[in-house]
Amino acid sequence: MRKTVFITGAAGFIGRHVARTLATQGWRVIGVGYGNLVTDETRTWGIEHWQSAEVTLDNLEALAVAAGEPDAVIHCAGSGLVGYSFEHPRNDFLGNVLSTLDALEFARLRAGRVRVAVPSSAAVYGAVAQYPITEDTPLSPISPYGVHKVMAEDLCRAYAAFWQVPVCIVRLFSIFGAGLRKQLLWDACHKAHARSFRFFGTGEELRDWLHVNDAAMLMSLALEHAAPDCPTVNGGSGEGMSIQDMLGRFGKIWQPNLQPDFTGETKAGDPAHYVADTSQIRAWGFTPQVSLDEGLADYIRWFRQTELLE
Amino acid sequence: MRKTVFITGAAGFIGRHVARTLATQGWRVIGVGYGNLVTDETRTWGIEHWQSAEVTLDNLEALAVAAGEPDAVIHCAGSGLVGYSFEHPRNDFLGNVLSTLDALEFARLRAGRVRVAVPSSAAVYGAVAQYPITEDTPLSPISPYGVHKVMAEDLCRAYAAFWQVPVCIVRLFSIFGAGLRKQLLWDACHKAHARSFRFFGTGEELRDWLHVNDAAMLMSLALEHAAPDCPTVNGGSGEGMSIQDMLGRFGKIWQPNLQPDFTGETKAGDPAHYVADTSQIRAWGFTPQVSLDEGLADYIRWFRQTELLE
Repeated sequence: MRKTVFITGAAGFIGRHVARTLATQGWRVIGVGYGNLVTDETRTWGIEHWQSAEVTLDNLEALAVAAGEPDAVIHCAGSGLVGYSFEHPRNDFLGNVLSTLDALEFARLRAGRVRVAVPSSAAVYGAVAQYPITEDTPLSPISPYGVHKVMAEDLCRAYAAFWQVPVCIVRLFSIFGAGLRKQLLWDACHKAHARSFRFFGTGEELRDWLHVNDAAMLMSLALEHAAPDCPTVNGGSGEGMSIQDMLGRFGKIWQPNLQPDFTGETKAGDPAHYVADTSQIRAWGFTPQVSLDEGLADYIRWFRQTELLE
Repeated sequence: MRKTVFITGAAGFIGRHVARTLATQGWRVIGVGYGNLVTDETRTWGIEHWQSAEVTLDNLEALAVAAGEPDAVIHCAGSGLVGYSFEHPRNDFLGNVLSTLDALEFARLRAGRVRVAVPSSAAVYGAVAQYPITEDTPLSPISPYGVHKVMAEDLCRAYAAFWQVPVCIVRLFSIFGAGLRKQLLWDACHKAHARSFRFFGTGEELRDWLHVNDAAMLMSLALEHAAPDCPTVNGGSGEGMSIQDMLGRFGKIWQPNLQPDFTGETKAGDPAHYVADTSQIRAWGFTPQVSLDEGLADYIRWFRQTELLE
């Protein structure tokens, strides 16, 4: 019999890709979260049943009655906006911490029968002096978003330790891919289109880019590794690339001779360098499948088709 | 003009004493939280206006309209039951973490004009190898309650760091006094009355006892020290006393020759030794005013009058 997975936030950027990956692997995928998905979209993303609802314990319980008890939960719900968390910390807390509590509580009430995988964020590390960043680096977040992700992780560890809920945390680094309507590449598309290719920062900041299809595969692996000792791994490529280099590659694909320039300023909550030490996921057998240039070309193609209607 | 303080959880054990202490010092005290207080009780505890309501942002905002804007908030709301937190972690989270978020959010929206004092707990330390415990000891809670108090503290530090909310945290150790209907002394009264003076544990566990009147004074001092660097202090006497010694003193006051004995077992979430290093509050000029024997005699008198109706 097919196993059933609840994917919270399945209408979101990462959630959708996780849904499709799990469906491809043979899971029966039930999605729940904000947003509306029409039938065509649920089919595209492999979602058998979509419930447009806030991710609360009551709604998860109702979903288990309506759609069947799950074997696993991948908790992709939550905001991923650092700037927003400074303006609306209470909402960010509710979306990122309270929803995680409820996903874990749902699993606890099923006494170990439900495995849980939770995407966290490199933002839990804050401004670290050394890179690549290993998972045992002390957590020192520098934004409300980062603080809330640490709290969500603390809940995972507590539910694993006190009630043996099988959990696994993946600290995602810079995830990108078609459908991401925020952050650097979204900004880059708009600026390239407007022929004003100028960016905040120095351009020397290092980031660790991972395509969303690879991130989705990692979340699937995380389900397999979910355990009461709550393994916590970095989700990245392990390669540091400067924003200048990334935008340089982007520019070349967009049009010949498009080169970025930079304001030189820095922003609160944005650390200098984020590069993952990926020993742990490599020990799981994980290797990224989508190259950076493929991923960038795919992103630009998507943007032109959906946003510029070319 | 008199300054106004909101005391959340003002119908609770610590909240009531904090209310009376602040009223005595000349504050206009507005109480909010669970429970009903009749007029006689609000007069006894120095509470000018009592609002029976859950501690949420909306209810605090409504209270500010109804009772006037406060200069300070002392956030005494929340559960203090370790055992309960294992059985009902979600409720414990909502009571201890979400309510703290809302108290802090209320202050943030007033841009530094509202000072906040938050009682935390020695439970944030978990099982520590050394005592007395200093405030810079790594936090390693061993109960859901302890995890939630760490999260409440993390929110205090975040609101102080990101929005300069003036906050102060006091990690209370073993607080006792008339009106406390749980924990060791409550248990001791019932067992002494039933002439079965036998206790869980070995009796050798060290605790740091502080009378609730002294704890209330500390919360008042904490308001004075509230600042955007979020000072965090231990609230205890600085004296370690074994549970055997404490119950021995108790027994002597209850009736001649009443001596405790012990099962020898230990309980999840109960660490061996909890003794505060109190250098920081001594530097504030704080010295406990109520001696242990006075406090015990007062507690026994209260129990006999209210529970045994002598």
